[in-house]
Amino acid sequence: MLNAENPVMMKAAVMPKPGEINIEERPVPQLQPDEVLIKVMAVGVCGSDVHYYENGRIGRYVVEKPIILGHECAGMISAVGSAVTRFQPGDRVAVEPGVTCGRCDACKSGRYNLCPDVQFLATPPVDGAFVQYMAMREDFVFPIPDHLSFEEAALNEPFSVGIHAARRSQLQPGSTLAIMGMGPVGLMAVAAAKSFGASRIIVTDLEPIRLEAAKRMGATDTINVREEDPIEAIKRLTGGRGVDTAWETAGNPQALQSALYSLRRGGKLAIVGLPAQDEIPLNVPFMADNEIDIYGIFRYANTYPAGISFLSSGQIDAKSLITDRYPLAQTRDAMERAIHNKSGSLKIMVYPNE
Amino acid sequence: MLNAENPVMMKAAVMPKPGEINIEERPVPQLQPDEVLIKVMAVGVCGSDVHYYENGRIGRYVVEKPIILGHECAGMISAVGSAVTRFQPGDRVAVEPGVTCGRCDACKSGRYNLCPDVQFLATPPVDGAFVQYMAMREDFVFPIPDHLSFEEAALNEPFSVGIHAARRSQLQPGSTLAIMGMGPVGLMAVAAAKSFGASRIIVTDLEPIRLEAAKRMGATDTINVREEDPIEAIKRLTGGRGVDTAWETAGNPQALQSALYSLRRGGKLAIVGLPAQDEIPLNVPFMADNEIDIYGIFRYANTYPAGISFLSSGQIDAKSLITDRYPLAQTRDAMERAIHNKSGSLKIMVYPNE
Amino acid sequence: MLNAENPVMMKAAVMPKPGEINIEERPVPQLQPDEVLIKVMAVGVCGSDVHYYENGRIGRYVVEKPIILGHECAGMISAVGSAVTRFQPGDRVAVEPGVTCGRCDACKSGRYNLCPDVQFLATPPVDGAFVQYMAMREDFVFPIPDHLSFEEAALNEPFSVGIHAARRSQLQPGSTLAIMGMGPVGLMAVAAAKSFGASRIIVTDLEPIRLEAAKRMGATDTINVREEDPIEAIKRLTGGRGVDTAWETAGNPQALQSALYSLRRGGKLAIVGLPAQDEIPLNVPFMADNEIDIYGIFRYANTYPAGISFLSSGQIDAKSLITDRYPLAQTRDAMERAIHNKSGSLKIMVYPNE
Amino acid sequence: MLNAENPVMMKAAVMPKPGEINIEERPVPQLQPDEVLIKVMAVGVCGSDVHYYENGRIGRYVVEKPIILGHECAGMISAVGSAVTRFQPGDRVAVEPGVTCGRCDACKSGRYNLCPDVQFLATPPVDGAFVQYMAMREDFVFPIPDHLSFEEAALNEPFSVGIHAARRSQLQPGSTLAIMGMGPVGLMAVAAAKSFGASRIIVTDLEPIRLEAAKRMGATDTINVREEDPIEAIKRLTGGRGVDTAWETAGNPQALQSALYSLRRGGKLAIVGLPAQDEIPLNVPFMADNEIDIYGIFRYANTYPAGISFLSSGQIDAKSLITDRYPLAQTRDAMERAIHNKSGSLKIMVYPNE
Repeated sequence: MLNAENPVMMKAAVMPKPGEINIEERPVPQLQPDEVLIKVMAVGVCGSDVHYYENGRIGRYVVEKPIILGHECAGMISAVGSAVTRFQPGDRVAVEPGVTCGRCDACKSGRYNLCPDVQFLATPPVDGAFVQYMAMREDFVFPIPDHLSFEEAALNEPFSVGIHAARRSQLQPGSTLAIMGMGPVGLMAVAAAKSFGASRIIVTDLEPIRLEAAKRMGATDTINVREEDPIEAIKRLTGGRGVDTAWETAGNPQALQSALYSLRRGGKLAIVGLPAQDEIPLNVPFMADNEIDIYGIFRYANTYPAGISFLSSGQIDAKSLITDRYPLAQTRDAMERAIHNKSGSLKIMVYPNE
Repeated sequence: MLNAENPVMMKAAVMPKPGEINIEERPVPQLQPDEVLIKVMAVGVCGSDVHYYENGRIGRYVVEKPIILGHECAGMISAVGSAVTRFQPGDRVAVEPGVTCGRCDACKSGRYNLCPDVQFLATPPVDGAFVQYMAMREDFVFPIPDHLSFEEAALNEPFSVGIHAARRSQLQPGSTLAIMGMGPVGLMAVAAAKSFGASRIIVTDLEPIRLEAAKRMGATDTINVREEDPIEAIKRLTGGRGVDTAWETAGNPQALQSALYSLRRGGKLAIVGLPAQDEIPLNVPFMADNEIDIYGIFRYANTYPAGISFLSSGQIDAKSLITDRYPLAQTRDAMERAIHNKSGSLKIMVYPNE
Repeated sequence: MLNAENPVMMKAAVMPKPGEINIEERPVPQLQPDEVLIKVMAVGVCGSDVHYYENGRIGRYVVEKPIILGHECAGMISAVGSAVTRFQPGDRVAVEPGVTCGRCDACKSGRYNLCPDVQFLATPPVDGAFVQYMAMREDFVFPIPDHLSFEEAALNEPFSVGIHAARRSQLQPGSTLAIMGMGPVGLMAVAAAKSFGASRIIVTDLEPIRLEAAKRMGATDTINVREEDPIEAIKRLTGGRGVDTAWETAGNPQALQSALYSLRRGGKLAIVGLPAQDEIPLNVPFMADNEIDIYGIFRYANTYPAGISFLSSGQIDAKSLITDRYPLAQTRDAMERAIHNKSGSLKIMVYPNE
Repeated sequence: MLNAENPVMMKAAVMPKPGEINIEERPVPQLQPDEVLIKVMAVGVCGSDVHYYENGRIGRYVVEKPIILGHECAGMISAVGSAVTRFQPGDRVAVEPGVTCGRCDACKSGRYNLCPDVQFLATPPVDGAFVQYMAMREDFVFPIPDHLSFEEAALNEPFSVGIHAARRSQLQPGSTLAIMGMGPVGLMAVAAAKSFGASRIIVTDLEPIRLEAAKRMGATDTINVREEDPIEAIKRLTGGRGVDTAWETAGNPQALQSALYSLRRGGKLAIVGLPAQDEIPLNVPFMADNEIDIYGIFRYANTYPAGISFLSSGQIDAKSLITDRYPLAQTRDAMERAIHNKSGSLKIMVYPNE
């Protein structure tokens, strides 16, 4: 480690079991030669963090021992391993939270998000970013410009999901898009769609605060599904034609069906949200008759540089999504806030070094 | 019309209402300047023909007045319209049975199978090919080489569905594929997969005669779903990995689910068969988690020249699929045979001019 | 024709031979059932118009009899043919100037710009848009919103070239691009690149007025090739890496070579400009070693709706490109201006009905 | 190393300087945990090996110290590193000869052949495969079936170049292709084209023995460029239309020009062969006017499993390309044979353990 001024011990927000988070002293990580040490400056609270906190599992991933949550993060390089070439202490960076093997078929073919051996922050049993310092392999760390704040850079993680959905569903500049669900992932998906040049971005949700936030992110039309049937509204807004592309981001079965029916013939649907239930009835003859494409979306790959470019362009008001801010010591409060203020909070941020 | 030797009247197999087919005298069609007159030599009986014969409708297409069925056809040019440049009487041809507008968004973007104004043979209210002579716009007629029989050329229609599925699902040469359902479309899909260079073609059905036919078409492995669980069998045959691509051709909900679960991570699924029921439960988290692509398939576009090349190459034993042959006068018998000999007949062919 | 109020005769700017343009009285065109009559409100002067005016030919296209030039046009529907369904008199429209056959392989596969039978305005022997009224097939006419001016809508034609280049060269949102040559096509290509979400748009030219205009269109960096070596400058601006994509729009051999060398490994090059000479020396080992893709660009296809969306979004200052305006009677002056004020004029516009 | 029965010393064919090859004793390589030790059974002599032997350099790669050549190889696993999971001693394998970093942009996006840090066998200063034993990272080693000979498996390397060209140039099953140059790479490219389902494979060369070999590999038409103009011949064979795709494999400027002119409108050209000279005059207006795509080809990525599938299918007579066989002790003779028998030898093979 090239910088001896780092502390030996640090604070970490550890979840010993679901529903509990304690601040513990932990040793600052030792670096491998290809790793950098990052002083973590901002960490977004993701729905998956809250889900582990509440339920202790997501699908096949089960919390079986104490874990540190948090994976949407940015910070400052505080030390570099002996083989690191791209960074030096003081560099401001965003962190891509999954470290992949680089050697399997998925990695070699450019779809490293499907690597079976990925080590992903805050996915059991891998510890996450609610800590003061973390080690990360150099190639998953990306420089950010001075005018981009750490909290905006942390938002590059959910933003990446939207960018990946845009690429996978071949979102065309100048085309029309519907996005179902305006949680943080949906809201950043709006920003991605805008960055990709979609001409019409129609969004749905049932919370007015989220629909208003969507407008700030670039939505051209908002539909409150409490007030209007989304399929009818989308048909109306597109002159009866339907949208070119639709993304479901909420994991809501009904929203998924609406997304499907809102498409034009030859339209494309991305499944971004993970439903709680496994089997969802889908109109298969409709899919065949209209030659719909459906794309499952799992995390992202090769999105960080583009995401940082977009966020740095000044055209995305990402900061306006952050409604709640907590120091590391109050990480548990951040979780509880996420659970109990669903209609008021958008993105909640934790600051481990403030 | 440049050839005056054609008869004025001809025989046609007319379905006045479902369940009935009569041979009637009809005038030989008059040609538009851009049309050719085709002496119809072979017409395959398609599942959709049988469905109209039995039920009088398929989805939104309803038989409301007498109709002539049949759309998988080939024949000989017997006259050409005044503006026709590519054909002359005596040319042997295959017929692509849908005439599109050439001017809508779908047509202009290369997906003319989605043209809302298509006139498709034997889809109500458009008459089909169980006739001695038919008129067709020049650009939907394709020359066939002398050594390709008319009945093989007629098979280019179901073959086209397989080719289109292969293109839409980006079937890779050297890859592994599972095809569910070995009816005529499934069997010709095997031929398409082989033509596209798939290395492993695993097929499922419950009729031994169909599985045997599949082997003749190029299947490398057959699974009788009465004897074996197809998902387990496919996993076993692929060393636990799953197939790169799967096509469901039977319209069977369970086969569709099997197709989905038989895929590897990042795999691609084409929906070729139209299920009778609308809503089919599909495992959406599985689709997202594994980044599955699903492609709806509706007919085909730009497939005829490639299909004729493949059929003419001598590597596809398409003729062996034809199990039953009828003259036009017995078109109704052909339909009844299709209904009552599902486990014995593969492709049934009608010959209007023999 | 549904609207009897149109005049019988109109004025047209006819070029009897190169170097001469006379205003003549011509009959207002009769409509085919599928055509609309357009009162032409604005026509851009294209480099190809000027080239025909100066030289009487472009490659294999030779002016052999009097011709009306002009093909970048917009106007108002003044009458509709009997089969027209999408328009009515009074509609404001942009005109896509090439009418294709809809039936050849190119048309059917979605690449109708390669149709061998295209009838393209102002390409000999087809008359163009320097007229008061013109007939056009309905499907090549596109509605424009009220707030989009006719002259901006006319710019959708050169804009389409940029959009097509962006699509063909798979321009990625968030990526880096170099565009060589800031004539009107290059300037509208900048607007296309911005609309497609390119993060870095580096442009080259030798005229300061053009480089300034490029900045207004969205260029992030300008290089005056009189002052700086463009390859070195691009390498410097991209941290030594080179750009992801480059477009040559000037038809300049040296600019084409610069475009090639400015690419990163795996980069993509679009050839938009047509050089005067046929054979241009290109570094083939460089292309192979670095797996460069090169895409020839010929006109465009399926671009009009997207182009109108972008132009209507308020984010493109297209109007600022129009430096000179002439009534129809002064079409020849417009041509001479284009020839003699290359370093001062950007886009010159003719208004046939003002 | 899990297998102690391997010898400590081995023989290697070392080139101390161009034109000389000596057999030396070298220590058998020590394995890293993720490496396997391969008993090399067959190594093809590649044009690049011969070029280093004759000239001591290829472009920027210069032989500056003794080097072992050879990179087209297959063999048997004789020991495995401590972390190896996929292999055990006795496994028969083909070797992909470039080890990449897995962490750069090129690797992460699936184009690892463009990795700037690749370690490629027999590219200075990396030693190659003319040895009895070599170490290789596990993920670049691929199992081969028992019925595939080692020498056929070694041919998977040049075969991979053809597969990569087919993918990059989007070779369509059922389409027409011209391949210029029938050296070993060209001949294996024919096999790749056949495996990809090309319907018409037209090849050119000036040596009758090569054209005959091309027929064995699947060429449908051969053109001896000494006897016939290749462009005219290709136009004639395709009814005036030109081919859909063309590959130049010889690095011959004139062949490259012929390949370009032999294309239909919208055709695609892959540059596989590396010309000796840098700048080659190409008809740029032709490329633009006809919307030609040109793809530079550099080695390959993700081709080994598909290649082994094709070679194992029994449909490729790869063995017939091997005209000369040498033991390791005569590696220099193999080189000299390659230089002096260009019109008689096709692929020359060296067997280090026979």
